[in-house]
Amino acid sequence: MPGADYTAPSQLELVALRSLPMVKTGDELAPLIVTACQRQAWTLQHGDVLVVAQKIVSKSEGRLVRLADVTASARAIELAARTAKDPRLVELILSESKAVLRVGKEVIIVEHRLGFVLANAGVDQSNVNDSGADSTALLLPEDPDASAQGLQRGLLALTGRRVAVIINDSWGRAWRRGVVGHALGVAGLPALLDLRGRRDLHGRALRSTEVALADELAAAGSLLMGQANEGRPVVIARGLAPDLTSGQSRDLLRPPAEDLFR
Amino acid sequence: MPGADYTAPSQLELVALRSLPMVKTGDELAPLIVTACQRQAWTLQHGDVLVVAQKIVSKSEGRLVRLADVTASARAIELAARTAKDPRLVELILSESKAVLRVGKEVIIVEHRLGFVLANAGVDQSNVNDSGADSTALLLPEDPDASAQGLQRGLLALTGRRVAVIINDSWGRAWRRGVVGHALGVAGLPALLDLRGRRDLHGRALRSTEVALADELAAAGSLLMGQANEGRPVVIARGLAPDLTSGQSRDLLRPPAEDLFR
Repeated sequence: MPGADYTAPSQLELVALRSLPMVKTGDELAPLIVTACQRQAWTLQHGDVLVVAQKIVSKSEGRLVRLADVTASARAIELAARTAKDPRLVELILSESKAVLRVGKEVIIVEHRLGFVLANAGVDQSNVNDSGADSTALLLPEDPDASAQGLQRGLLALTGRRVAVIINDSWGRAWRRGVVGHALGVAGLPALLDLRGRRDLHGRALRSTEVALADELAAAGSLLMGQANEGRPVVIARGLAPDLTSGQSRDLLRPPAEDLFR
Repeated sequence: MPGADYTAPSQLELVALRSLPMVKTGDELAPLIVTACQRQAWTLQHGDVLVVAQKIVSKSEGRLVRLADVTASARAIELAARTAKDPRLVELILSESKAVLRVGKEVIIVEHRLGFVLANAGVDQSNVNDSGADSTALLLPEDPDASAQGLQRGLLALTGRRVAVIINDSWGRAWRRGVVGHALGVAGLPALLDLRGRRDLHGRALRSTEVALADELAAAGSLLMGQANEGRPVVIARGLAPDLTSGQSRDLLRPPAEDLFR
């Protein structure tokens, strides 16, 4: 049971990698990260948690799409008119989604094919290196948990250290203004802590029995990335116990039937 | 404009205070925190951010209510039957709320009188020191921003250091499982960073122009508190620039008219 082996740390150190180069399609992230660690004399340790911005994962995996290659459907054209978006961008949003939940003035809230509810399916036009303006879009990774596992394995092979990896992205929320880092991919630690059976200081069963550990780490990592994430897209958190039970990002998805806000 | 003066830190150190005593009604938090800092040789500095669990703020302010003193209304009795709750507890939830948004199997999602949308109005029966079982409930602070400002002033008077304060609580979210720390009270730093006008690495205007800085810090602090928050209810974050523009928790509230999920 994830959580049975978990104790909250009493200290946590967060450090952003400062010299990661711009990531391009086909780049392997693990060697780039190891080199950037070396440049700032950071030695990865067992149990370090790497929070990695979705953008560099998507770029390394070639999830960049040229809008010129996209043909908008009638539905995309209609939604684009309502949201003041490029119809080809909306086509990509729809192609990445299972369902459209809400349409706002400038936003389309969808259930992504991965199950996440988020704005515009996470499809992003900013921070993408391209000569033309607005001519490309960056999609979320095909399988972010697999991406996180792959990076974990790559770092293990290069350094001999077993780290945990969270791929994060800044998403808006219902009811509250501002974006916050959320976990999109998880490897090497529980995404969700299940504290059922735990008792509080007075011996009473805990009221909130599930803690979104990976989302809290994703938010903490975002604090150091800044909003123009590409400058510092990797943040390392040190202080959690090593060798935690490995979870996955879909552990964080509330089943639609239990969700009061669809 | 909050955010104009803000740069994301490249390092952040989080430390939980380990020897804070159990907080009782009427306790002043500032001297308790200063003593706990001294015990672990932590000297508060300008710009340190204290993330403080709502529970100890509420307790110090006497927000504990004996259920025996509460009379349930007809509406509370009806909602209690639908949610398997004590009708007197539901009465307190209703008295703390402007509106009931959803009623689930074991949860009542409300708009709190402070404007936050959350489960059960943040009224809490766990971790409350009382001889009887389930006989008291703890409400959110009357005015959490004022509580945060008061603590900030108290610490300035005792130490000469101007720190920022976030009062946090673990809340559930739409769409995602697990609770995450959220900012309930804010003093001494922007709750919401407004990055309008900022450009990304390629000179393009940023897509997400508002970042919920205080929520990200609240989540980071929660990582160290654990779920039985009372053991380590104060976490200090060091690394943010000092003397940031002071915001308030209501900056984080999405105006209902702009909210697609009410």
